[in-house]
Formats: sequence, C-alpha cells, structure tokens
Amino acid sequence: MTADLAVRLTENLPAERVIDDPALVAAYATDASRLPAPRAALVVQPRTAEEVSAVLRVANTTGTPVVPQGARTGLVGGSAAIEGAILLDLSRMDAILAIDAVEGTATVQPGVVVADLQRAAAERGLFYAPDPASAEWATIGGTIATNAGGMRCIRYGVTGDAVLSLQVVLADGSIERTRPATVKGVAGLDLTSLVVGSEGTLAVVTEATLRLLPAPGPARGVLGLFPSTAAALAAAAALTTGPRLPSTLEFLDDTALRGIRIARPDMDLDPAARSWLLAITDAVEGADRDLDHFVATFRAHGAVSVDRADDEEQLDRLLAARRALNPGLLALRGAATHGDLAVPRSRLAAFAEEAERIAEERGVEISLAGHVGDGNLHPTVVYDAADPVATAAAHRAAADLLQLAQHLGGTVAGEHGVGTLKLDDLDGELSSRLRGLQREIKRVFDPRGILNPGRKL
Amino acid sequence: MTADLAVRLTENLPAERVIDDPALVAAYATDASRLPAPRAALVVQPRTAEEVSAVLRVANTTGTPVVPQGARTGLVGGSAAIEGAILLDLSRMDAILAIDAVEGTATVQPGVVVADLQRAAAERGLFYAPDPASAEWATIGGTIATNAGGMRCIRYGVTGDAVLSLQVVLADGSIERTRPATVKGVAGLDLTSLVVGSEGTLAVVTEATLRLLPAPGPARGVLGLFPSTAAALAAAAALTTGPRLPSTLEFLDDTALRGIRIARPDMDLDPAARSWLLAITDAVEGADRDLDHFVATFRAHGAVSVDRADDEEQLDRLLAARRALNPGLLALRGAATHGDLAVPRSRLAAFAEEAERIAEERGVEISLAGHVGDGNLHPTVVYDAADPVATAAAHRAAADLLQLAQHLGGTVAGEHGVGTLKLDDLDGELSSRLRGLQREIKRVFDPRGILNPGRKL
Repeated sequence: MTADLAVRLTENLPAERVIDDPALVAAYATDASRLPAPRAALVVQPRTAEEVSAVLRVANTTGTPVVPQGARTGLVGGSAAIEGAILLDLSRMDAILAIDAVEGTATVQPGVVVADLQRAAAERGLFYAPDPASAEWATIGGTIATNAGGMRCIRYGVTGDAVLSLQVVLADGSIERTRPATVKGVAGLDLTSLVVGSEGTLAVVTEATLRLLPAPGPARGVLGLFPSTAAALAAAAALTTGPRLPSTLEFLDDTALRGIRIARPDMDLDPAARSWLLAITDAVEGADRDLDHFVATFRAHGAVSVDRADDEEQLDRLLAARRALNPGLLALRGAATHGDLAVPRSRLAAFAEEAERIAEERGVEISLAGHVGDGNLHPTVVYDAADPVATAAAHRAAADLLQLAQHLGGTVAGEHGVGTLKLDDLDGELSSRLRGLQREIKRVFDPRGILNPGRKL
Repeated sequence: MTADLAVRLTENLPAERVIDDPALVAAYATDASRLPAPRAALVVQPRTAEEVSAVLRVANTTGTPVVPQGARTGLVGGSAAIEGAILLDLSRMDAILAIDAVEGTATVQPGVVVADLQRAAAERGLFYAPDPASAEWATIGGTIATNAGGMRCIRYGVTGDAVLSLQVVLADGSIERTRPATVKGVAGLDLTSLVVGSEGTLAVVTEATLRLLPAPGPARGVLGLFPSTAAALAAAAALTTGPRLPSTLEFLDDTALRGIRIARPDMDLDPAARSWLLAITDAVEGADRDLDHFVATFRAHGAVSVDRADDEEQLDRLLAARRALNPGLLALRGAATHGDLAVPRSRLAAFAEEAERIAEERGVEISLAGHVGDGNLHPTVVYDAADPVATAAAHRAAADLLQLAQHLGGTVAGEHGVGTLKLDDLDGELSSRLRGLQREIKRVFDPRGILNPGRKL
C-alpha cells in the first residue's frame, strides 16, 4: 500500500520529494512530546504550493491521512505520525520571499525558522514580534498552526496577531489566499484566524504574509526576588494593569528555584528567594523610567532583592535562571509533567493558592512558572519515574491543575496547542455543542477527514 | 402571518418586547445607507440572552429571517429590513456589566454605545481603543458584527483586536461562549474571530468581553498641507514605516478640500493646499519628539504649511476639516457615492494616480480621503443627482475604483462591511471556492438560513 502511494505521488511530483525508506520515515515519527507514534507510510518534502496541492489531491483521492510537519518542536503530539499517513514535511519550503519595509510586511514560506525571520527583519531595522521559546528551531508554519505564544505576548500579542494573510492548500488541492494583505478588510469571514491555531486540521499553509513592526529599543529589565509566590504575583498584577506595561513578565516559583539551584549551582541565586519575577522593557522612549517603575513596584511588594539590567548582556545573565528551568525541574526528581494552561490574569493568585492545596492533597511537588503577564503558566509536577505510586500521583495532580484552570475561567491549552495530548481535557471548557460545531467546520474544509485527523478537535 | 409570529413570540417572552404596529416597525426598516427596504414582520427588543434565545428558537422553527440591529449606523444595508423578518433590536441590552481594572477588560451587553464604553473606561484610567466615526451612536454589537475600524487603527488595530471572548446565541437558540476570557488560549478553533465581522449571519452576540488598555497620553498632532496628493501620500508613507508611528493618520485630497472650503468658508483653509494630512500621537512618552518628527517629515516632503497642535483643543480645531468632509462633498454637486476600500499601504500612491485617470476617462470628480495609515480610503464620486448622465458616470467611476483596489491587491470592503451593497463586488477578490466555503460555514452555524440571510456572503 505504501508502494502504491509512493507510485501515485511520484507520478505527480519529482521522485526525490518522496521518502519511503522505513528507517528514514521513522525519523519523522514524533515531535518534542516524544509520545510514541505509529508508523507513517512515507514522508513527502514539497518545494512549492503546487507540489503540496499534488500531494493533497493524491491523499484526498486515496483517503490517506496527511500530517503537516514543520520542525516538530511541538509538545502535544500535534505533528506526530499517524498510522499509514503521509508526513508532509514543509521545512524545505524555507524561503523568505520578500521583506517590504514600506508595507511593513514579510512574505515567507512555511518552513522559514522563526529566528531567521527575526534576524532578516532586524537587518532591515524591522521587528518580527512573535518569539516562542523554540524560535531557533520552530518554523513559521508550525507557529501559525499552533498560534504559538512566548515571552513577548504581553505587549505584542501571539503569532496570529502578526498574520495578515495566508496562502493555503485545501484538502482537495485548491490553492487559495485567505484575504488580501491589507491592514483593514472585511470582505469575507475571517478564514485567516480560523486557519491560525487549527493545527493542520483545516488546510496546509504554504505562504504567509506577516506584519513587521518598527524595531523596538534594546531589551532591559529588572529582576525581583520575593519571599513568597503571593508577593511576586501581586507585583506582577501591579505591572500588568499599570501604565508602564512590560514587554515581558516572567515568573518562577520556589520549586522551580530549588531545581535551578541544583542544576546551576554557579548561578548563586539568593537562598532567601521563594519566587522570581523578571520584567523587561523594550521601549524606545522612557525605558529608564520603565525600569525605575519596575524597581519601585517590586520594592513596594516586598522584594528581598532587586537587580537591574541596563543592557542586553546584563539582561541575558538575569534570564539564565529562566532558561535553566527545564533542567532544574528534572534535577529535582528526574521527571516532570508538561503543563501549559492560562487563566484570566486576575485569577493567578487564586490559581497559585489552589495549586498549593493540590500539592498537599496529592503529596506531590508542583512548580509554577510562566508568562504571568498573559496569565499563561507552565505548571509541572516533578516526580520519580521509577516510583509508580509517585508517578500516578503526579499525573493526577497535573490533571487537577488543568481542571483548576478551567474552574477559574481559564483554558487547558495556553500556547502549546491541543494535539492529541489535551484532547480529552477540552470538555471542561468547550460545550459539546461548540465542539460539534467545530467538527462540522472541519468537515466543510476537509470532507474526507484527511488533514491531521484526530488532532485538535 | 405577522399575527401568528407575534403570538408565538409573546408566548415565549414578555409582550412588551414585541412591536408589531407597522408604523413603528417601519421606523426600524433601514440603516444609514438609506437603501429602500422591504417590510419586516415586527421588531423584538430583548433584554437578556435567554430572550434572544427564545426569539431565535421561534424564528428557527418557523423559518423566519432575523435581522440583528444595533444603532443602524451601518452604511451598506447590513441591518436593513428583510421582507417578513424579525428585526432583533439589541439596543436595549445596553448594560456595562463589569470593568475589571486588574484584568484589563470590560464585559458589556451588545447595545452599549461605543463612546459610553470609552468614557466608562476613561473614568477608571483605562482606554477602549476602537473608535469608529459613529462612536457616539454605534453599538458595541454593531461594531463587532462589522469589525468596525476608525481613525486609531494604525496603532490599536480594529474592533476585533479588542474582542477577547463573546457570548453568542446560535440560530437554534443555544447560548454559547466562544472561548475563555484569557489573553492566550488555543483550545479550539477561533470562533470568536469568525463571528467578528460576520454581520449577523452566523450568530447573535449577546455579551462581549473586551480588552481595555492603560490610558494613552493626550492626543496632539501636526497638520501638513501639501501641493499635491503625491506629496502628502509620500509623507504618509514615511510616517507609517518609520519608528515614530502616529496613532492616527488622516488624509484629504484636493476635491475634498474644495468642498470643505464651500461648506465651511469660516475655516480659512490655505488656498494653495491641494492635500491635507493630519498625524496624531497619543504617546505617553516622547510625544514632543513625535510631533517634531511629524513636522520634519512634512517639511521634507514639501508641505506648503505645517500647523502643530500641542493640546487637544488645538487638535480639535485641526480635525474640524476632516469632520466637514461629508458636508463638503455634498456641497460640491449635491450628491456623492459612498466608498470604503483598502489597498496595501505601499499601493496608495498608485491608487491615487489611477483614480485620477478614472476621473478623466469618466469625466467625473473623485475625492480621496481616509485612513491612509491603514491603506483604507473612502473615495467618493460627487455628482448632480438631477443629471442622469452624470449620475450614471459617477456610479461607473465608483465601480471602477473598487476594481482598481482589487487590482492593486486590495479589498472593496475596508471597514464598513459588505451588507447587501458590496455583495456583487466580492468576486474580484474572493475565489468562488472560498465564497462557497464561507457559505458552507454559514450553513454549519445556521442550517435553516434565518440569520441575516442574503447579507455578507
């Protein structure tokens, strides 16, 4: 059957685009979730929208599932293999087609790496704002498919906010443009936003026109260490509601700090600190006063120490603890659950209190960290994977945290997507009527259900 | 039949919500387009989502069209009556339910007038950014339905950019929330953006959670008068691509200025001016330097005069010409076509050149004015309605302008919606495949086709 499919595909596109050697195909089987994945039929590496169209026409005719893939940095299994599927590797479509300084846009293929676009824009004195943690590897296509977030969303919004227009290939192979690349435009339904974040279930993005902004000022920041989570979150709330909005506001709790101290003893983190809050500004004007305001706010909320980074190099040193978060969490007990949820910002303090109660009840250790300016946390439960009782308790606690987020008016999927991992958790926030409606919309785009079936919806 | 419908409705909601006196119903028949409208069956004025649900259940059972209405300030017939329809007047659902300064959100009913929300936010030191010209009359629900724009979009985006979450009633009467009111959240398809701008064809918005921002600085600005349209547009391009982005950038051409001189001779506009460009900043910091930059940019592009408004009162005086645009256009020949299109900002100069060629070819007078920072123009053709030849030529020229916008990669609907007026023009920018897809999405939401049928899609 794979052989048949390979023949059909090579009738329609250059033979070297198709990889059917099972050992090579297996290398594309999973994403950063490392979830075990079944065997795909083959990998196709198209170079043009027309080639993507040819692949989808074959898939639609034969009823073959298609999994669009970028850099497979996703954490929820959204681009992992499906049994018998075509893995549509878009990473070779990696051209920056145009940067238009007058228009303030970049037109790119989906395989462009986010950081490459950021650098290309910066060379022209412009700024591509979306900046997920995976920016050095993740592709534009993948970040559009997941509507990826990151550290700069508090000021600049998420990936979707930078998407002006998309060229997409529909399941039947039609090549379409979602809207004109104008700033304003209300001629149709907003299909662009519908495709953004749809995780490859509605259409394959083959080109994106993205907004570029004038270059911001250099990033500078203030780190506050606090005696408690409550104090740091109160300081965070004061910053997100006041007039000097940071461009980044990152938080680490006591558990995270303990792990980081183990993983990076060289870092010499104040042992009195029970939480960590970093506020960054990239204002072109008033950055000094922003920093003064961050310092004063941190002091007013009882910071045990306040450290000011007046240039990017100093800031980089302050960010090192944030970057050591994952190794730190693993250093505590060897394993950690993955977490990505969001609550209304005003409910962060309540979330933290309730999370502490969950930790006590389940007898586990929970770390809260994340983009508090967006109400977006990456809570993890650290555990010893060799201990089945502890492992089970950790996963129960992780599930409790998701339910808690929903109970507080939040979501189980903040910025990492739904993939397969979060599918069972959606009912707590989306009614069955809305989930049904979304599946019907999927059927409108993809009547045979070939595009990343079983994901997202 | 109207009597039957009234009976069914009053079985399900208080009798005083239903107006079936034909004279009263007729008062709700049209919008600001003044297009002639057929006779609706009756008007219903619900007070709650449950009442809206009751109305839609009756409509869906009986197959009665429903036209959601706000303040009927729309310009494209989107909320005008349909034969036999229920006119669903949402203007009585006008409560500001909550302003949450910690969260940075307002939760409002659809009938709240935009300017009332702006003022309520300002009282709390916050800012509701969307500001269509009709802000003193238009309702939040209407501006969400049309994804309304305005003068501040260059910095703050359109209405949809301020919408966090919606409560909607579907055609079958289900009351649903599109998403949690979190900043980030990727749990489902983006139904919020799909409903925004759908002009009442997918669902009825009964509550909106909207983003509020920290209050900006006072609005100040610089008016430049230029010897030509080309010079003003070159200055505008320099401002929209540079680092000191105005919050508003408005343009008037020679035809507009001639009309305004007639309508407002007291205004004493420099007779040498052939175009008018106003740049506003509301920066909290660096506003003085913004103004200096606007002045220098205008001078560098050959402004014949530059006038600086250092406070809101002075700015108000400069804005008077912009406000006199419509009376001015009518003063020229008595009648004017309505225009609302957008092109990529870099194509504005090309658009203006081609528009001049159209004016010559058709022997008509065209005025270009609008939000050039967004590439959004409101071109009008002025004509003498008593002269049938001139009237026909004006309408042909107006159609030429729409085609020109599409030819330049733009859209025939910038910020005023499609309604019924622009329906026939959509084919030039949306493929038949995409238009079909959108109609299928409509069917998913509204299988019996009761919600504002024949509009938008």
